[in-house]
Amino acid sequence: MGEFDLIARFFTRPVRRAALGVGDDCALLAPAPGMQLAVSSDMLVEGRHFFAGVDPAALGHKALAVNLSDLAACGARPLAFTLALALPRVDEPWLEAFARGLLALADEHGCELVGGDTTQGPLNICITIFGEVPAGQALLRSGAQAGHDIYVSGTPGEARLALDALRGQLHLPAATLARLRPRLERPTPRVALGLALRGLATSAIDVSDGLLGDLGHVLKASGVGADIDAFATTDLLASSACHESATGQIDQNTLLQCALAGGDDYELAFSAAPAQRGAVQAAAAASGTPVTRIGRITQEPGLRLLDRAGQALQGRFASFDHFA
Amino acid sequence: MGEFDLIARFFTRPVRRAALGVGDDCALLAPAPGMQLAVSSDMLVEGRHFFAGVDPAALGHKALAVNLSDLAACGARPLAFTLALALPRVDEPWLEAFARGLLALADEHGCELVGGDTTQGPLNICITIFGEVPAGQALLRSGAQAGHDIYVSGTPGEARLALDALRGQLHLPAATLARLRPRLERPTPRVALGLALRGLATSAIDVSDGLLGDLGHVLKASGVGADIDAFATTDLLASSACHESATGQIDQNTLLQCALAGGDDYELAFSAAPAQRGAVQAAAAASGTPVTRIGRITQEPGLRLLDRAGQALQGRFASFDHFA
Repeated sequence: MGEFDLIARFFTRPVRRAALGVGDDCALLAPAPGMQLAVSSDMLVEGRHFFAGVDPAALGHKALAVNLSDLAACGARPLAFTLALALPRVDEPWLEAFARGLLALADEHGCELVGGDTTQGPLNICITIFGEVPAGQALLRSGAQAGHDIYVSGTPGEARLALDALRGQLHLPAATLARLRPRLERPTPRVALGLALRGLATSAIDVSDGLLGDLGHVLKASGVGADIDAFATTDLLASSACHESATGQIDQNTLLQCALAGGDDYELAFSAAPAQRGAVQAAAAASGTPVTRIGRITQEPGLRLLDRAGQALQGRFASFDHFA
Repeated sequence: MGEFDLIARFFTRPVRRAALGVGDDCALLAPAPGMQLAVSSDMLVEGRHFFAGVDPAALGHKALAVNLSDLAACGARPLAFTLALALPRVDEPWLEAFARGLLALADEHGCELVGGDTTQGPLNICITIFGEVPAGQALLRSGAQAGHDIYVSGTPGEARLALDALRGQLHLPAATLARLRPRLERPTPRVALGLALRGLATSAIDVSDGLLGDLGHVLKASGVGADIDAFATTDLLASSACHESATGQIDQNTLLQCALAGGDDYELAFSAAPAQRGAVQAAAAASGTPVTRIGRITQEPGLRLLDRAGQALQGRFASFDHFA
């Protein structure tokens, strides 16, 4: 099966929203008047971003989910994407499952595959995604202001707990792993929340590399610092991770590490003025996405982790400072 | 050096035409009113699209050139691009040279790097490019009509001759190889010609996989066939390849193969009405790009190669028929 048959068979579908889709030198997109196009690219490499042998349907889902998450963090509505795929060989069942997982999530978000490239090579998936956002309304990293609240969606750390359990570095009850594993393999991009936060959040980022590290990018772009309640997210994670068991089986340090620096969460971290607390919770409820207030933007630069008493957390967690 | 330092150091430059460039979750593009956005992705893999150890500046040039060529084939004006890069290791001199080659060509075309991704993995370069074209004016593969002339720009086959010489499969005088090698390693995307052909060409494609194979895509998309003068491009190639030597040193079959199916040309093949012959040559002259008339679109499907007498070419070249 040649390159062109492969595209036609697995990835070509009728054009819906684009002016022209797969099968010419370029796809043609026409953003609505007054709209800016939000664009993001992510590349996933076997062994680095996913295990060799991972379920191809889950991989198709995740490859698009991480890109949708970037649109969510800008408050952009998904429009279309391109897919470039390097494959060691043409494996039809694998491609069929990959396309199924990919296109199911695409359909869920009305996001159309408009073009791409396939080639022979070590397995590599590169998606570039396009969304629309009204000019001037995109959520940026640079808008955080001193005094604003800091929030995060969902329960950061669940994906990392699942990863550590799958790697054999941590024991989880089978039922807990079964519940957390989709957080790693089939993350839910927070697109609806991102749209609901337009005009409300003053900055936003998606949490892909770990909550504190990604917050550090916001602080740097905004020229501010932050006080973070270390236990706000850790308590959420503890409650999630110990759901199937009466006694907590994971030590507090592991929970802190996973919640604050786990990575692969694809949650949104954002700031908003304290006067908007009710509006933020209403946006969260309207989009069906739980959000938790985890700290406060400060004029003083740097990122400080606070314990339950509001005192600076000592010891190994001081090392998180280097992200700020 | 981490991912973020690498982007900042080698690839971040002040935003010019985009609303927002490198360094947020998404870049923001705002096409001008009435414009459609032309989008194309190409992935280049070591060992498949370029030799291991190729000059990184030439590789940076070529990675963008093949994408610009897709915009050219749609008659789109380059606007911006994203770069996703998998690298086995952070090699600063390599990255510096790659960025230099890439950004020099980008500057030449006013095409801005607005975002991307870097990761550790087998060397893989994925560029997604964006161009603007007035709504309804894009050059498509589907517009060829029976009776229209078929043209190609430049001299298809030069890149393949250089490739075969570098692989040791063909002898070329050193001066000839030195002249042809940049056609392989630093192709010139025909952006100016593509713009000049708006409203003039009835179909277009960029020649990346070989002239006849790519023409086959146009014929299929347009529901037509073609008679191709096999020697129109072959004579051009012979004249180019034998420029440094009084006697031709390359046999006719090799020249035919390279000219008609060599690949890696990044020339434009296009159709236009016979009444436009003067206008096509004027567009070619205005864009500084030679074009040659090589055949005619037919109602009868299939692609026929004709000899100098206008008779069907017999023998091994009949095999080109399968492209149609």
